[in-house]
Amino acid sequence: MERRVDLNCDMGESFGMYKLGLDEEAVKYITSANIACGFHAGDAQVMDKTVSLAKTQGVAVGAHPSYPDLQGFGRRKMDATPQEVKNYMIYQIGALQAFAKSHGVKLQHVKPHGAVYNTAAVDHQLARAIAEAIYQVDKDLIFLTLAGSEMEKAAAEVGLKSACEVFADRNYNSNGTLLSRKKPGAVITDSEEVGKRVVDMVVKGQIIACDGTVLPVKADSICVHGDTPGAIEHIKHIRQALENANVNVTSMGNFIK
Amino acid sequence: MERRVDLNCDMGESFGMYKLGLDEEAVKYITSANIACGFHAGDAQVMDKTVSLAKTQGVAVGAHPSYPDLQGFGRRKMDATPQEVKNYMIYQIGALQAFAKSHGVKLQHVKPHGAVYNTAAVDHQLARAIAEAIYQVDKDLIFLTLAGSEMEKAAAEVGLKSACEVFADRNYNSNGTLLSRKKPGAVITDSEEVGKRVVDMVVKGQIIACDGTVLPVKADSICVHGDTPGAIEHIKHIRQALENANVNVTSMGNFIK
Amino acid sequence: MERRVDLNCDMGESFGMYKLGLDEEAVKYITSANIACGFHAGDAQVMDKTVSLAKTQGVAVGAHPSYPDLQGFGRRKMDATPQEVKNYMIYQIGALQAFAKSHGVKLQHVKPHGAVYNTAAVDHQLARAIAEAIYQVDKDLIFLTLAGSEMEKAAAEVGLKSACEVFADRNYNSNGTLLSRKKPGAVITDSEEVGKRVVDMVVKGQIIACDGTVLPVKADSICVHGDTPGAIEHIKHIRQALENANVNVTSMGNFIK
Amino acid sequence: MERRVDLNCDMGESFGMYKLGLDEEAVKYITSANIACGFHAGDAQVMDKTVSLAKTQGVAVGAHPSYPDLQGFGRRKMDATPQEVKNYMIYQIGALQAFAKSHGVKLQHVKPHGAVYNTAAVDHQLARAIAEAIYQVDKDLIFLTLAGSEMEKAAAEVGLKSACEVFADRNYNSNGTLLSRKKPGAVITDSEEVGKRVVDMVVKGQIIACDGTVLPVKADSICVHGDTPGAIEHIKHIRQALENANVNVTSMGNFIK
Repeated sequence: MERRVDLNCDMGESFGMYKLGLDEEAVKYITSANIACGFHAGDAQVMDKTVSLAKTQGVAVGAHPSYPDLQGFGRRKMDATPQEVKNYMIYQIGALQAFAKSHGVKLQHVKPHGAVYNTAAVDHQLARAIAEAIYQVDKDLIFLTLAGSEMEKAAAEVGLKSACEVFADRNYNSNGTLLSRKKPGAVITDSEEVGKRVVDMVVKGQIIACDGTVLPVKADSICVHGDTPGAIEHIKHIRQALENANVNVTSMGNFIK
Repeated sequence: MERRVDLNCDMGESFGMYKLGLDEEAVKYITSANIACGFHAGDAQVMDKTVSLAKTQGVAVGAHPSYPDLQGFGRRKMDATPQEVKNYMIYQIGALQAFAKSHGVKLQHVKPHGAVYNTAAVDHQLARAIAEAIYQVDKDLIFLTLAGSEMEKAAAEVGLKSACEVFADRNYNSNGTLLSRKKPGAVITDSEEVGKRVVDMVVKGQIIACDGTVLPVKADSICVHGDTPGAIEHIKHIRQALENANVNVTSMGNFIK
Repeated sequence: MERRVDLNCDMGESFGMYKLGLDEEAVKYITSANIACGFHAGDAQVMDKTVSLAKTQGVAVGAHPSYPDLQGFGRRKMDATPQEVKNYMIYQIGALQAFAKSHGVKLQHVKPHGAVYNTAAVDHQLARAIAEAIYQVDKDLIFLTLAGSEMEKAAAEVGLKSACEVFADRNYNSNGTLLSRKKPGAVITDSEEVGKRVVDMVVKGQIIACDGTVLPVKADSICVHGDTPGAIEHIKHIRQALENANVNVTSMGNFIK
Repeated sequence: MERRVDLNCDMGESFGMYKLGLDEEAVKYITSANIACGFHAGDAQVMDKTVSLAKTQGVAVGAHPSYPDLQGFGRRKMDATPQEVKNYMIYQIGALQAFAKSHGVKLQHVKPHGAVYNTAAVDHQLARAIAEAIYQVDKDLIFLTLAGSEMEKAAAEVGLKSACEVFADRNYNSNGTLLSRKKPGAVITDSEEVGKRVVDMVVKGQIIACDGTVLPVKADSICVHGDTPGAIEHIKHIRQALENANVNVTSMGNFIK
C-alpha cells in the first residue's frame, strides 16, 4: 500500500482590517486549506483572496464553517438545534463553493470549526445534521473529521466520503482523545519529536499515548497551524520528515475515493 | 410571437423571530421568487423554508443579494467598492444556490436588492461587477434587471442572459424612469388600472408615462409585492388580467434563452 | 402594609424594518418597560422611540440585556464566560441609559432576557457577574429577578436592590419553578383565572401550585406580555383585577428602596 | 498664555481574537484615548480592558463612535439619516460611558470615527445631529473636532464644548484641508520635521501649508497613531519635542472649559 497523507491547515481567518495567520507562508507547505466562511472569521473579500492563493499554490480548498459567532471566533458552544446547524452549514458551504467556482476550482472538503467541530465529535445528532448538509450540497465532498468521532460515523451513515485527521503536535490519552491543554505536555513543541510522531502515525498507523499505550490510528490528514512564525517552521519540518520517510504528501482528494 | 411574461416577487425576507411578507399567499400567484440571502433580510432557516415553499408551488428561485445592512434593510447606499460588491454577490448567490441544490432545484436568476439595485442601475462599474459575479458563479443564471439600465448593458457585455422587469403599480416619467414616490400619483392603487397597464406593457410593449408619452418597453417580468393583504389581491388581479388577455404567465427561465 | 405591585413587560423588540409587539397598546397598562438593547432585538432607533413612548405614558424604563444573538432572539444559551457576560451587560445597560438620559428620565431597573435570564437563575457565578455589572454602572438600579433565584441572592451579595417577579399566566411546580411549557396546563389562558391568581399572589402572597401546594411568594412585579391582541386583553384584565382588589399598581421604583 | 496641548490617539480597536494597535505602548505617551465602541471595532471585552489601561496610565477616555460597519472598519460612507446617526452616537457613547463608570472614571470627550467624522466635517446636518447626541447624553462632554469644520460650528450651536485637533504628520493644503494621501508628500515621515511642525502648531499657532502659505491654527489636541512600532517612536518624539519647547502636554479636559 502506498504511503500517503494530506496536510490540512485553517486559512482565510482574517476579517476586514484584521489580519490573522501567515497564510502566504503556510500555503507553500500544505495540501488542503480549510477556509473560513464568514461566521467565525473571514469575509467575502478574504474568501476570494484565499481561494485564489490556494489555487496558485495547487492547494485543495475546503469549507471551514462555524457557529455564527465572530466575536467568540466560533469557540463558544451555542444551543442551536441540529436543524439550525444544518442550515448554517449549507449556507457557508455554498458561499465558499461560489468562490471556488469563480476561480475555476472544485471544493474538495468540509471541516467544521471550533465549538461546532468539538460538539459534533461527540453529539451524533449534530454530526448527522452536518453530514446531511454536506451531502445535500454536493455528495462528492469529503467530510474531514476527527478519527473515531461521531462525525466519522455520521459520514458513513449518509454515504459521504470522510477523511480522518490527527494532530501533529498534541499528546493523546490512552483512549484516543487529546490530552487537555491544561495538562503539562499537552502540546509538543520539539520539532524533531513532532516530525517523528507524524511519520509513525502515517507509516506505522499508530500513536504513542502519553502513558505509553500504542494506539492504532487512521491518519488521512495531519492538522497543522499557520498562525505564528514558529508554526510555519513546524509545518516545514513535518513535511520534510514525511518526505524523508517516502510518504507521498498530497491533497486528500487524490486518495479518498 | 407568443405573449409571455414572468411575475417576480421578493420573498424570504423574514429573519429569526421576525416575520415579514405573506410568502405563503404570494407564492401561489407568482412564477419567480427573489429570495433574500441574509445580508438585508433572511437567514439560513428562512432561506431553507423559502426555497422549499417555492419548489412546492413550482415557482422558480433566484437570489436577491444586497449590501450587508440588516438594520437598514439594504436600503442605504454604502461606499463599497465594485470589487467588494462583486464578492458580496458571489457570497450570497453561493449561499442561496446551496439551498437550491439541497432541495434539488436549479437557481434561475439573480436580482440585486434595494440600494445596490438602484445604484447599479446607473453606475456602470458597479453593474459590471455584479454581472461578472453572476457569470463567474454560474454563466447560465439570468440577471433580472431594470429595463434600459446599466445592469442590462453589463449583462450583455459579459455574455450573461438578462431579463427586464417593469413595475405594475408605479407611474413612469417620460424618460422611462420611475416617478418619485414623493410625487402624487407615484403609486397606482386601483387594481383595475394596474391590470390594464400590465397587459399593455406585455401585449403592446408600451407604457403610458405620467405626461401621456408612450414609452416602448421590453417586459420580461413584472415586479409585484407580497407584503400586505392588499398586495396579494393586487397580484391575483394582475395574473387574472394577463390570463384573460391570453398571456402565458410563466417563469422567465422558460423563455429567456 | 400597603398592597402594591409593578407590572413589567418586554418592549422595544422591533428591529429595523421588523415590527414585533404591540408596544403602543401594552404601554398604557403597565408600569415598567424592559427595553431591548440591540443584542437580541431592538436597535438605536427603536430604543429611542421606546424610551420616548414609555416616558409619555409615565412608565418607568429598564434595560433588557441579552446574549449577543439577534438571529436566535437571545433564546439560545451560549458558553460565554461570566466575565464576558458581565461586559455584555455593562455595554447594553450603558447604551440604554444614554437614551434614558437623552429623554430626561432615569433608568429604573435591569432585567436580563431569555437564555441569559434562565441561565443566571440557576448559575450563581453568572448571576453574580450580572449583579456586579449593574452595580458598577449604577448602584441605584433595581435588579428585576426571578423570586428565589441565584439572581436574587447575587443582588443581595453585592448590595444591589432587587425586585421579584412572578408570572401571571403560568402554572408553577410545587418547588416554585415554572411548569414546563411542554406539559398540559403550563399556560393559563382564562383571563378570569389569571386575574384571580394575580390578586392571590399580591394580596395573600401565595401561589397555588399545579398539585395544590400553597407556595409563599414575594410578588414585587408581575411579568406580562404584549405581543398579541389577546395578550393586551390579558394585561387589561390583570390590571383591572388588581385595582378591584385595592392593590396599588405602580412602578417598582416607588416601593423598592 | 500657557502653552498646552493634548495628544489624542485611537485605541481599543481590537475585536475578539483580532488584535490591532499597540495600545499598551501608545498609552504611555498620550493624554486622551479615543476608544472604539463596537461599531467599527472594539467589543465589550476590549472596551473594558482599554478603559482600565487608560485609567492606570492617567489617560483621559473618550468615545470613538462610528457607522455600524465592522467589516469596513467604519471607513465606508453610508446613507444613514442624521436621526439614525444621532441615535447610533447616543448608543455608543452610552455603552462606553458605562465602562468608564464601572472603572470610576469620567468620560471626557467624543471623537467620531472614520467615514462619519469625514462626512460630518463637511455636512452640517450630520454634524449637528452628532453634537445634539453628545449634548443630550452629557452636556459636559467635549466634542473633539477637526478645526474649522462643521462639527466645530455645530458644537457651538448646541452649547457644547469643543476641542480642535490637528494632524502631526500630514501636509495641509493652503485652504486648511489635508493634502490627499494620494499625492506625494501627503504624509510626513521624518520624525524631526514632525516634531518641529507640532511645536509650531502649538506655540506659534500656525501650520506651513505645502505651498508655503502660513495657516493660523487652533491646536487643542494633536492626533497621533499607535498602530505600528514606527508610529510609537513618532509619538515619543512629538511628546519630547513639545516638552523641550515648554509646552504642557495634558488632557484636553484640563484646559477646555
